[in-house]
Amino acid sequence: MPDPAARPDPQLQAWRARADAALERALAALEHGEPRLLGAMRHAALAGGKRIRPLLVYACGNAFGAADAALDAPAAAVELVHAYSLVHDDLPAMDDDALRRGRPTVHIAFDEATAILAGDALQSLAFAVLADAPVDDGRRVAMLRELAGAAGADGMCGGQARDLAAAGSKQQRGADRLLPVVELERLHAMKTGALLRAAVRLGAIAAGADAAARAQLDRYASALGLGFQIRDDLLDVEGDSATLGKTAGKDAAQAKATFPGLLGVEASRGRLAGLGEEMNAALDALGMTADAPLRQLGRQAIERTH
Amino acid sequence: MPDPAARPDPQLQAWRARADAALERALAALEHGEPRLLGAMRHAALAGGKRIRPLLVYACGNAFGAADAALDAPAAAVELVHAYSLVHDDLPAMDDDALRRGRPTVHIAFDEATAILAGDALQSLAFAVLADAPVDDGRRVAMLRELAGAAGADGMCGGQARDLAAAGSKQQRGADRLLPVVELERLHAMKTGALLRAAVRLGAIAAGADAAARAQLDRYASALGLGFQIRDDLLDVEGDSATLGKTAGKDAAQAKATFPGLLGVEASRGRLAGLGEEMNAALDALGMTADAPLRQLGRQAIERTH
Repeated sequence: MPDPAARPDPQLQAWRARADAALERALAALEHGEPRLLGAMRHAALAGGKRIRPLLVYACGNAFGAADAALDAPAAAVELVHAYSLVHDDLPAMDDDALRRGRPTVHIAFDEATAILAGDALQSLAFAVLADAPVDDGRRVAMLRELAGAAGADGMCGGQARDLAAAGSKQQRGADRLLPVVELERLHAMKTGALLRAAVRLGAIAAGADAAARAQLDRYASALGLGFQIRDDLLDVEGDSATLGKTAGKDAAQAKATFPGLLGVEASRGRLAGLGEEMNAALDALGMTADAPLRQLGRQAIERTH
Repeated sequence: MPDPAARPDPQLQAWRARADAALERALAALEHGEPRLLGAMRHAALAGGKRIRPLLVYACGNAFGAADAALDAPAAAVELVHAYSLVHDDLPAMDDDALRRGRPTVHIAFDEATAILAGDALQSLAFAVLADAPVDDGRRVAMLRELAGAAGADGMCGGQARDLAAAGSKQQRGADRLLPVVELERLHAMKTGALLRAAVRLGAIAAGADAAARAQLDRYASALGLGFQIRDDLLDVEGDSATLGKTAGKDAAQAKATFPGLLGVEASRGRLAGLGEEMNAALDALGMTADAPLRQLGRQAIERTH
């Protein structure tokens, strides 16, 4: 099977450029920011990356009839939350990572205090951007509620806290007692899944998709989120740092609970294939064509090489 | 002059209790949070404190006709942002403080990673709470926009970054070259002032106050914010740790730029009195009585002993 990244889709490319432009506009609109803080925010948010969350916003919103111009704000907002979370996750007190997307992490390129503040300000900016989305106030509020819920203690932050707790308790009880797979899935449903699901939901809200469609989109997004994480774990086992743009083999070095670690590599690949079928079933139910952008993004999430 | 804190106003006491209850409800509504993370969030948000920001929301909203029930959400939201900022400011990479309101700071009582995450999740929660405020969607969006702007790079985070930059450049250029007073005022207008101004504005938005009233309220809030900070600096010079509930004399020990340091103690007191007159003039223009809650809160901000 050819690497999907090798044949870039013009529509996805165009949306990626829109997302970058929306992020650039959001950061350029800050008027009184301290230069070092703004530099750190730009380093974190404009460093490239796959932009999978913005692409999910555009692909989902577009599938249900929203104009691209109505999707720029939620696309930028969800990526700003993602960018802030990476800055804080990389801090010495958290994952202590020096390399991200092939570049020094924010606390290395700047300093720890600036990295903490830049992450904080990126989160605020995400909500400021959503509050100005060119949709009616009802949809703005629904998007703000969705993103705030996905980012917080019941979503991304809660998942990260569960990850820390799992690492701590593993040290206490010895490496022979592993985290149950069901707990690992729940952890990732919050840590990574909540924001990916929010990306799809923001697109659906901006487009005014109905409840039945939203239910299928949730099914798609949940499978995508879990698949994305299993692929991440497999890449850490199989990949090398140069291709990944971050340190490979780190999960094993940190004795982190991973799907290949708990299920084995082959069973993890099998689970991944099953999640691909789950995504396709949800998109079939929505009447999406074989080359629909949401279908391509699902494939990329579970087949990507970095 | 008697200490205003010695004769608690029943109305302010009742609002303080409402704010505490609203914070408790917001935290209790989190369903999937990891216990240690929730514990750290509760430690940060329910530790007491003066609750000046929620009181400003209630006092301002009430003065312009909003029901208390419509003010609970903005009161809790602005305090959640304040609480998160204290957690992050106290971190070793920032102010490195072990004591806050007479209790261990969050990274001491828990750990650094949990403190970073708890701050992050408190910020998300602030926006989630505002998105559910029992007012119409237009006012919800206006409040969300106001709070996101006040919290971010153009407000609180930007002020904190300026503070860090000022400390750094002072070390580079030697203690003999002081920060100009105008820059110190600007720094604090962002670091502390933006959120105090937002508290007043949230009350005004919830109540639907008109533009002329909002202009006077901004004038009041700007004077209150600067006065609050000058009083803080004076307390650090004059106070003791037991009364303050935090480490006294810390500004001098850290060679921080302060108003007493730049202007002298007497001139700082004079500036404070002038700001009190400025607040009163704004409230006079709004037709507020001598014992209006906003008047009391202004007095407390510049006369407080802790």
